[in-house]
Amino acid sequence: MKKINIAIVGFGRIGKVHYTHLKNNRDYKVTHVFDTYPGVLDDFNISESVKFVDDYQIILEDETVDAVLICSPTNLHPEMIQQAAQAGKHIFCEKPIGLNMEQILTVNEEVKKSGVIFQLGFNRRFDADFLKINRELKKIGTPHILKITSRDPGMPPIDYVKVSGGIFMDMAIHDFDMARYMFGDVAEIFVQGGALIDPEIKAYDDIDTAVISLKFTNGAVGVIDNSREAAYGYDQRLEAFGSEGMLLNANHTETTTVFASKETVASEKPLHFFLERYEKSYATEMDFFKESILNDAPIACTFEDGIKATEMAEAAKESYLTGKPVKLS
Amino acid sequence: MKKINIAIVGFGRIGKVHYTHLKNNRDYKVTHVFDTYPGVLDDFNISESVKFVDDYQIILEDETVDAVLICSPTNLHPEMIQQAAQAGKHIFCEKPIGLNMEQILTVNEEVKKSGVIFQLGFNRRFDADFLKINRELKKIGTPHILKITSRDPGMPPIDYVKVSGGIFMDMAIHDFDMARYMFGDVAEIFVQGGALIDPEIKAYDDIDTAVISLKFTNGAVGVIDNSREAAYGYDQRLEAFGSEGMLLNANHTETTTVFASKETVASEKPLHFFLERYEKSYATEMDFFKESILNDAPIACTFEDGIKATEMAEAAKESYLTGKPVKLS
Amino acid sequence: MKKINIAIVGFGRIGKVHYTHLKNNRDYKVTHVFDTYPGVLDDFNISESVKFVDDYQIILEDETVDAVLICSPTNLHPEMIQQAAQAGKHIFCEKPIGLNMEQILTVNEEVKKSGVIFQLGFNRRFDADFLKINRELKKIGTPHILKITSRDPGMPPIDYVKVSGGIFMDMAIHDFDMARYMFGDVAEIFVQGGALIDPEIKAYDDIDTAVISLKFTNGAVGVIDNSREAAYGYDQRLEAFGSEGMLLNANHTETTTVFASKETVASEKPLHFFLERYEKSYATEMDFFKESILNDAPIACTFEDGIKATEMAEAAKESYLTGKPVKLS
Amino acid sequence: MKKINIAIVGFGRIGKVHYTHLKNNRDYKVTHVFDTYPGVLDDFNISESVKFVDDYQIILEDETVDAVLICSPTNLHPEMIQQAAQAGKHIFCEKPIGLNMEQILTVNEEVKKSGVIFQLGFNRRFDADFLKINRELKKIGTPHILKITSRDPGMPPIDYVKVSGGIFMDMAIHDFDMARYMFGDVAEIFVQGGALIDPEIKAYDDIDTAVISLKFTNGAVGVIDNSREAAYGYDQRLEAFGSEGMLLNANHTETTTVFASKETVASEKPLHFFLERYEKSYATEMDFFKESILNDAPIACTFEDGIKATEMAEAAKESYLTGKPVKLS
Repeated sequence: MKKINIAIVGFGRIGKVHYTHLKNNRDYKVTHVFDTYPGVLDDFNISESVKFVDDYQIILEDETVDAVLICSPTNLHPEMIQQAAQAGKHIFCEKPIGLNMEQILTVNEEVKKSGVIFQLGFNRRFDADFLKINRELKKIGTPHILKITSRDPGMPPIDYVKVSGGIFMDMAIHDFDMARYMFGDVAEIFVQGGALIDPEIKAYDDIDTAVISLKFTNGAVGVIDNSREAAYGYDQRLEAFGSEGMLLNANHTETTTVFASKETVASEKPLHFFLERYEKSYATEMDFFKESILNDAPIACTFEDGIKATEMAEAAKESYLTGKPVKLS
Repeated sequence: MKKINIAIVGFGRIGKVHYTHLKNNRDYKVTHVFDTYPGVLDDFNISESVKFVDDYQIILEDETVDAVLICSPTNLHPEMIQQAAQAGKHIFCEKPIGLNMEQILTVNEEVKKSGVIFQLGFNRRFDADFLKINRELKKIGTPHILKITSRDPGMPPIDYVKVSGGIFMDMAIHDFDMARYMFGDVAEIFVQGGALIDPEIKAYDDIDTAVISLKFTNGAVGVIDNSREAAYGYDQRLEAFGSEGMLLNANHTETTTVFASKETVASEKPLHFFLERYEKSYATEMDFFKESILNDAPIACTFEDGIKATEMAEAAKESYLTGKPVKLS
Repeated sequence: MKKINIAIVGFGRIGKVHYTHLKNNRDYKVTHVFDTYPGVLDDFNISESVKFVDDYQIILEDETVDAVLICSPTNLHPEMIQQAAQAGKHIFCEKPIGLNMEQILTVNEEVKKSGVIFQLGFNRRFDADFLKINRELKKIGTPHILKITSRDPGMPPIDYVKVSGGIFMDMAIHDFDMARYMFGDVAEIFVQGGALIDPEIKAYDDIDTAVISLKFTNGAVGVIDNSREAAYGYDQRLEAFGSEGMLLNANHTETTTVFASKETVASEKPLHFFLERYEKSYATEMDFFKESILNDAPIACTFEDGIKATEMAEAAKESYLTGKPVKLS
Repeated sequence: MKKINIAIVGFGRIGKVHYTHLKNNRDYKVTHVFDTYPGVLDDFNISESVKFVDDYQIILEDETVDAVLICSPTNLHPEMIQQAAQAGKHIFCEKPIGLNMEQILTVNEEVKKSGVIFQLGFNRRFDADFLKINRELKKIGTPHILKITSRDPGMPPIDYVKVSGGIFMDMAIHDFDMARYMFGDVAEIFVQGGALIDPEIKAYDDIDTAVISLKFTNGAVGVIDNSREAAYGYDQRLEAFGSEGMLLNANHTETTTVFASKETVASEKPLHFFLERYEKSYATEMDFFKESILNDAPIACTFEDGIKATEMAEAAKESYLTGKPVKLS
């Protein structure tokens, strides 16, 4: 069986998560790790067979490398994607593709021309719960209402919030992609929201709490509710309602234990940390990537999916700032 | 202990539900039942001590009657309320108060002048689940997001839909009141929706599926999702989310039984019929009414609550028709 | 439609529960209430059409009376049953039938001779959960394992425990009947237990905590676990496991509300009081009684069921005292 | 940080599970894999730094090896343990220790003399659910009742059953250890059971369905119910009930998704395969082993634990065969 030789480009938190999964994946062999800062390897158990490089070109020029897995800072994505496409490497890129829409569209053209496989890292599509709901959607008949609850366990530091691109680009973008993954393209977006947790972020035109209503092009309606801080932890739930019924999921907990006492019947809070909640999705998405590379399977999360989620985030921001519903083309 | 002598005005389905509960309520004595059609008593087990009358004046003129419970058709409500107020009878009135806002406002003035207790029958406020969430709301800290799911088990006949006042006035009005009950007054409403179940109702400017987003005057946000037809039955859920946590309820089932088999782990569908789901609320609301009459307790659901829910229904309809968010004064 | 004229014999707590239900049951008319103590009517809302008598003979001699509902103290049951049978009245009798097995067997012969309908009040058979599991038992295929958890919310006073007949006769007898209701007759019983809550009851050869293992005559096995005091309330669960799957139920709560907070996700404790938990079963059992009287339906809980549950209680006590398994004939 | 050099002895299914976990465990380095059949490496991704050997002596004589992880066939355990102890290697051994009690006791003496750390692989102790219940046991106050449900998803082939040692030694032994882990030593065991799934196994003095009642030395009582075949999958639940409340766990599912339809509200069956259900426990137990080796932590599952579970299995078999309760010394 042919293994895919892959280089991990950027070895921060997510790069390491990918490495740990790929090490146990019999379809891949990690050949290189790229990072500009060699200290990323400290205290990390990397196999001796992996070459560490601080020059991206070495990877691009190595003919044994089949694919790159881009986990570098967002501002570097577009150029790295473009170079990899030109070098004929298949590309798995963490979201978002970039920060500038014009540049993103240009890079998309380059990728298309090159013919390489490009998969975007909207990892929640590959979470077992959401994957199953997606696969069984026909069970609900005609789609009518989609509800997504997506709440973070804690407000990020204000310094992060300032540069994060705001709640829509930084946080809700996952939910925008999830909405499209389930019910297809969105025709109109309207936002109600506020800075209810930390009023200071209003100064940056940002909010921390939102109800985002959606009209899909197929006529269905939907709603996403976001909060930067749920006291009880990371809240990730979805309901897909249609003419024949409803599919839904629940939050995950560390254990299933319950304590019944004089006071109450207490079960566990949801898992707090997104890397725990979505741990397996990072492995599963690479299995889909492999299927596209080796077996011509349709790409499970495309460049266009990235563009469309970004457009939704921009429309949501416009709706929040203008107080009006915004149509998507 | 003094009993409240009460007359039931209108003896259709809801009138009978009230009668059955009041018969077992030691604080009330049902003295009269009014209906224009004597056949309503057929096959119904009414106590011999209750006088059946087909003339409302007899009740109004009977000095032993302390209160009236108005369950007549909506178009008769305003005049019946006005007359009862003038006769000094306390009034419990099924929702809605009326169909014409101008008339409603006039009647409200009459009621205020009369000094009688007036309680409106938004019975869901008195459902044990929602009553408890309401009483424990301070547990969630500052309110941030309210989510109400309210889906009927089946589309009513088109002939009913035509004259029902539409989804907002006929169905969502309960949810509008519930939203105010939980998070207070609403400043802005926006509706996305469609006739996804029965396109024919579009001809009546009506829809059967809606996502209604709300901005509360306290800054919180909310969403109501409505469907005229949930395949799995009557879906009535609420989530109140705030700075310190979340309160929520679940649907009710006839039994708690589960069957685990080769195929699945199957539990019961929600109760199908609103009179079953909300059965006890019809009894509980009368206990609150009694507390206001006998012990000066604040009125648990006021005339103004009725007006405000109606205004929300009107704003929702306007938002749907114009495609724009609508502000409430 | 013919109504069944019924007299309630003994008007304590359970007699009143029955009265309240029968008042709303269109198949019955309560004609008499018997009690030796007229004070039982104080503060209770009884219809003027019901005759209160302190002489049981009046009821027996009244030809309009079709049936008696015996809720008197247990020691009076056998004679009252015998007299009612001789008078040709149908009999609904609260459990247990009596305290002395010889006397019980004699009375059974009298009842059989008389040809009247006799139904015993093992009300849990008529609880919606257990009724449904019973009706759907064929779904589990061949019965393999029955598990019954039955724990009271609090230890009764020691003075009650002394005269209660002990945990098996007073408390587990319901579970013995439930076991037979589900899986049929029992061939062997073995008890492990102890006085873990209140060691004082050991002096009365009694225990407060037990695991009772059962071998059914059909080869299936079972277990009942009992406690006189569950900190979290009244615990009433059952699992029926067989070759094709498992049916089970859950405890009931006052509301379905949940509070998710920084600490935990808290739901409600089970209903605390047996009259709340099993409220509707007292109404439902009377519907079955009616079906036997009016429509020749098989008796839903027979005299023999009472005898067999009593025999199981005796066998359990013997097993506890001897430390050995005890066979039933 | 010092790593523990460990050799995996026996490279079948469980050996490979351990290898996969240890590869990602920064406290261990797998130095050798021993197996008599080199084909075990086929199609398995083993690191080049691991030495494959078919001679156990090589491992015992290698001074760099700190510990052995014995996953060989049970009949080889005793001698391999003894040799490892004599060679001064710490020992992690899969259960059971052996098949012959006399031999087991001898080996235990050898291990004690040698002073090496010996941990037994009752992996369920290290499952997150059961670990948490164990750690929080004081919450339930004085222990009263322990209930363990342990049902396999399917009957093993009759050829396996014949040589398996029977349901008590092969399957319930995990539950016996779990009972001791939670409530301590057991004083008496009584078994009701039968060959309800496959009568053929009766010929081997074996059964497939059992209710095992337990009396603990601390006075508490307990019950284990076992089935070789639950239609709905692998059923692994535990309830620990005491004076202050109850701790319990639930089965695990692959996803949390639910489908509500016209028919039912369907959730997933439990995970079917024990290696999936208990996957993480195999990693966690090695963390405990490390703590004992490096930091003198008490051994989390001792040689004596293995002996006592075996004694319980023997007592259970005796109880089944004699029909009497059996006391443990």
